[in-house]
Amino acid sequence: MPYEVKALEMRSAKAPYERTTITRRDPGPDEIVIDIKFAGICHSDIHTARGEWGKVDYPITPGHEIAGIVSAVGEGVTKFKVGDRAGVGCFVDSCGVCKNCRNGEENACKDRTIWTYNDTGRDGLPTAGGYSEKIVVREGYALHIPESIPLDQAAPLLCAGITPYSPLVRYGAGPGKKVAIVGLGGLGHMGVQLAHAMGAEVTVLSRSLRKKADGLELGADHYYATEDPETFKNLRDTFDIIISTVSDDLDVDAYVKMLDMGGVLCFIGMPPGAQSFHLGGHLAGAHASISGSNIGGIQATQDMLDFCAEHGIGAKIELINADEVTDAYDKVVAGKVHFRYVIDISTL
Amino acid sequence: MPYEVKALEMRSAKAPYERTTITRRDPGPDEIVIDIKFAGICHSDIHTARGEWGKVDYPITPGHEIAGIVSAVGEGVTKFKVGDRAGVGCFVDSCGVCKNCRNGEENACKDRTIWTYNDTGRDGLPTAGGYSEKIVVREGYALHIPESIPLDQAAPLLCAGITPYSPLVRYGAGPGKKVAIVGLGGLGHMGVQLAHAMGAEVTVLSRSLRKKADGLELGADHYYATEDPETFKNLRDTFDIIISTVSDDLDVDAYVKMLDMGGVLCFIGMPPGAQSFHLGGHLAGAHASISGSNIGGIQATQDMLDFCAEHGIGAKIELINADEVTDAYDKVVAGKVHFRYVIDISTL
Repeated sequence: MPYEVKALEMRSAKAPYERTTITRRDPGPDEIVIDIKFAGICHSDIHTARGEWGKVDYPITPGHEIAGIVSAVGEGVTKFKVGDRAGVGCFVDSCGVCKNCRNGEENACKDRTIWTYNDTGRDGLPTAGGYSEKIVVREGYALHIPESIPLDQAAPLLCAGITPYSPLVRYGAGPGKKVAIVGLGGLGHMGVQLAHAMGAEVTVLSRSLRKKADGLELGADHYYATEDPETFKNLRDTFDIIISTVSDDLDVDAYVKMLDMGGVLCFIGMPPGAQSFHLGGHLAGAHASISGSNIGGIQATQDMLDFCAEHGIGAKIELINADEVTDAYDKVVAGKVHFRYVIDISTL
Repeated sequence: MPYEVKALEMRSAKAPYERTTITRRDPGPDEIVIDIKFAGICHSDIHTARGEWGKVDYPITPGHEIAGIVSAVGEGVTKFKVGDRAGVGCFVDSCGVCKNCRNGEENACKDRTIWTYNDTGRDGLPTAGGYSEKIVVREGYALHIPESIPLDQAAPLLCAGITPYSPLVRYGAGPGKKVAIVGLGGLGHMGVQLAHAMGAEVTVLSRSLRKKADGLELGADHYYATEDPETFKNLRDTFDIIISTVSDDLDVDAYVKMLDMGGVLCFIGMPPGAQSFHLGGHLAGAHASISGSNIGGIQATQDMLDFCAEHGIGAKIELINADEVTDAYDKVVAGKVHFRYVIDISTL
């Protein structure tokens, strides 16, 4: 029997959040019910909820950084039991049989990845995310949250953790490698911690030196301001991996020039406009690359959580209650969050 | 004692080639003298000689696709003896001790790579290339040309061979991989042969189907016209590696959409203007890359020559005499060469 749970929703692009109830289904044979304890606020929640990334079927209940406790399991569930700590990230289902799903890239399912909110589930109903009391998800799309990570600090890992983790692993961040993280926000503060724990030499490239103490505390070895043109001169031919977390346009050529031979500039922030580059000069001469990356598959996300547990990594968060979400959105856009807002779902 | 050898030179950006003599030095202890038999005409010779790529110190004697026979060796030379077949590519010297040189990337020397022409040698004199009877080079910067490759077909390999070979090796072209080669000119016709010999499934993407028979004969499995918009629809999510050999602007997003997960679009043609792309959509979703590459180091170039010998690969050439070079430049620019002009240096 479907039932109602408390949730937050936005009813139009410019509306504030309102308390409401949404319908959740009983778990199917391979599904689990998670009582959500904490939900992170990702910048992409804001872009989506405010209609900046395309069509939205209002009302919308965002949230894809979800951490909670399993409260019920379907009869065929084997990976989880009631009482387990569990998380859900950006997607809740995929075909499971296409090449990408079989390769652990369920986030790029060739049929379709079903996103955690602002999408349509297999039942034909709108999906709704973590700004709610419960979520129902197939066990194969839920993550185990290790005991050593506090649940509130774990929630943001489901998006802000896996997003930098994927390219850091893909491009071999580790001892002897020089990694730069551009921007020290939600994604950037995770990128610094992860790259440092992987053993890389980590540099933060931030607009100013305002957050330098934070950056060094998170594990950065160096910290430079990109508002200083000397930064780009002094760091020529330096990095193996540059991860850009900013969503503003980037002077791609200037960043490429800071790459060492074979280096890669990877965008995990998503500037909406066209980015431009020139072949001449460093990109070809250093056989360097420009790439993009977003989130990761289920196994990679679990690997990331286990890695964070092993290295004592969590998100740095500010806990807010359900009435503060609208205000928190404005603060995130203004760059005032330190480093991630997480909603205490018990205040719903 | 320095001595004069016959050569071709251009005296200004718009002048025709003229016969002349240039000065060559006696070989130093670690140098060899190569009697040049054949010199390929690379499109970059044309860009450089015509001043399209920046300042030129006229008169200029281009040519960096050089094949010949060793006619003298310095007293300390160990790798070559008189009578050996030898080649020279795009560069004739580098520091040899920097990180890149030690890693076999002498083409990206951190001190400076000394280019085969339009550069200044360690002796302070202008370098002069393969459109001449002889060249003197340190043995460590000369290549062994295997006996099984006819010398005239070997000459273009020194640039047009190594240039596609490098990224094909770097990105793992081989059995099970789908490789597209964009453009079927000097670089493209080598890319097709090399990728095919590596065991990849090879597709040519050319403006029209005009050269389809050539492409299939060179080893392509498929051939599509990029003037047909259906090509881009039908080939979505297809390729592991796309090598673009064209020097016109590319619709980067359209090519990126043809990449499979983790695929790479690598430019080895060098469009001079800004190229632009968007993060949204496929680049990030497929964690794909855009990269550039040019030539390769000495060991990689030798590996390429040995690979070509093993697989019976040579450049497809039209042999011309010294009086035809000016005319040949115009034909290359007009796309009328099939596939590479090579100068018979005996006609100098």
